[in-house]
Amino acid sequence: MKKIKAAIVGYGNIGHFVLDALLTAPDFEVAGIVRRTLGEQPAELAPYKVVTDIHELGEVDVAILCTPTREVEKYAAQYLAEGINTVDSYDIHGSIADLRSSLDKIAREHGTVAIISAGWDPGSDSIVRTLMQAAAPKGITYTNFGPGMSMGHTVCVKSKPGVKNALSMTIPLGTGIHRRMVYVELEDGAKLEDVAKAVKEDPYFASDETHVMAVSSVDEVKDMGHGVNMVRKGVSGKTQNQRFEFNMSINNPALTAQILVGVARASMKQQPGAYTMIEIPVIDLLEGDREELIRHLV
Amino acid sequence: MKKIKAAIVGYGNIGHFVLDALLTAPDFEVAGIVRRTLGEQPAELAPYKVVTDIHELGEVDVAILCTPTREVEKYAAQYLAEGINTVDSYDIHGSIADLRSSLDKIAREHGTVAIISAGWDPGSDSIVRTLMQAAAPKGITYTNFGPGMSMGHTVCVKSKPGVKNALSMTIPLGTGIHRRMVYVELEDGAKLEDVAKAVKEDPYFASDETHVMAVSSVDEVKDMGHGVNMVRKGVSGKTQNQRFEFNMSINNPALTAQILVGVARASMKQQPGAYTMIEIPVIDLLEGDREELIRHLV
Repeated sequence: MKKIKAAIVGYGNIGHFVLDALLTAPDFEVAGIVRRTLGEQPAELAPYKVVTDIHELGEVDVAILCTPTREVEKYAAQYLAEGINTVDSYDIHGSIADLRSSLDKIAREHGTVAIISAGWDPGSDSIVRTLMQAAAPKGITYTNFGPGMSMGHTVCVKSKPGVKNALSMTIPLGTGIHRRMVYVELEDGAKLEDVAKAVKEDPYFASDETHVMAVSSVDEVKDMGHGVNMVRKGVSGKTQNQRFEFNMSINNPALTAQILVGVARASMKQQPGAYTMIEIPVIDLLEGDREELIRHLV
Repeated sequence: MKKIKAAIVGYGNIGHFVLDALLTAPDFEVAGIVRRTLGEQPAELAPYKVVTDIHELGEVDVAILCTPTREVEKYAAQYLAEGINTVDSYDIHGSIADLRSSLDKIAREHGTVAIISAGWDPGSDSIVRTLMQAAAPKGITYTNFGPGMSMGHTVCVKSKPGVKNALSMTIPLGTGIHRRMVYVELEDGAKLEDVAKAVKEDPYFASDETHVMAVSSVDEVKDMGHGVNMVRKGVSGKTQNQRFEFNMSINNPALTAQILVGVARASMKQQPGAYTMIEIPVIDLLEGDREELIRHLV
């Protein structure tokens, strides 16, 4: 069997766990890691090529984008045009459809595949939400996150001027309402009120109750655990009170990484274009003989 | 918008709820109902053509098979060869892959689509199982059913000689182990021990603890409610203890019917062939503009 050659682009939290997931996947081979700058590397990267330009890795089938979410489009557009599939966990809900449109055009032109917003939310949760709506078309689905660290929100806070380190915790208040508890280590001379204002005005935080607090050490309060509770009560046909619930308690970057590797695999089986996870068959996420999977899972 | 013309084939429990689901779906039109014999019909069928041969209904895009599970293959094979898509909720887990192979050949030859085993288990649960495995490839998923009436098992018991009416209840014992509690109304002269033997030897029951009891009235103990609890604890990459859980509490035939209408819609969007639900994108189950659905659900 020819293995799928995957490049990891960006080596922060997610990139690290993507490497774990690739090493446990029998159908993948690590083509190498793309980083912004070289220099001293973590010990676990010793066996791999670490480069600043993906072309130095030779043949790459799929690039797994582990960059900050706001850099996804730039990398995806470039790689798709160069014949490399891309997958990402782009997580700004309001602009997913736009990203899909823009990458779809490039992917179709160049015969490549992008699978976007493929983490757990957006991502695997999106599949559950869609399935719940199919099962009971009338009704409301509430997605309750946490308590847990939101990586996207944390990266967003870290990008604000005056912030040395940050942690954004998501607290579920029920019926899809959340509080954001933001802990920041300030740079010398930075003012908490300026940071708080910048955070609260960001689209990531603008619609949620947000509290920004200064702490002396973010590392002391950090925990990668996260969770979700999704509930729907709805109507199947004319029958009321159909109830559905999905719960997870997970290591956040580990799950995101595992989903990214699943969609990297699935990208090899789709027609050219850009897709969200609800547009691809779930069986394509899995390794192994299709007939066997059907016997085992259906 | 051209509506999808659907025929309901078989009008028992499921057929009745499929009619409800079609009437609440804005993109469907009821082509008619196919029954084995005619004669006096339920009042709610007055507005519709009721026939014994689907050809009497004129143009039909998709036949929703609501027959006993063992008759699915016969009807599907015939309709697929005649240019009509079929969907069913075939529920004998051990032979789903074989049914798929056999219908796939016919469907490809005739440019039609079959979506098989599309109820809630097999069906929507299969999608959740697949997704859980993708999220944590190593680990065990337990599917716990009930307590509730199993329609497939009940139909099976009813087919045994000497049985006037029957009810098969599924009792979850945890870790995917179930007890089957079977209540039968016997025909005059029938012996409970003969019925019990026939039931316990059937593949539907052979691998579960099964108790068969005679009752004077099955109707008095009947309740269409059902439920499922699916749990997986597994490993994402190299990270242990990732936990996932899916729960439902539902009216059984109403949910099966709603899923069947969803896959009937999805059948219009697939390439010719036979599919299980894990092989089709979940978005195809839903009515409405694709871009809007992505904005709303991803």
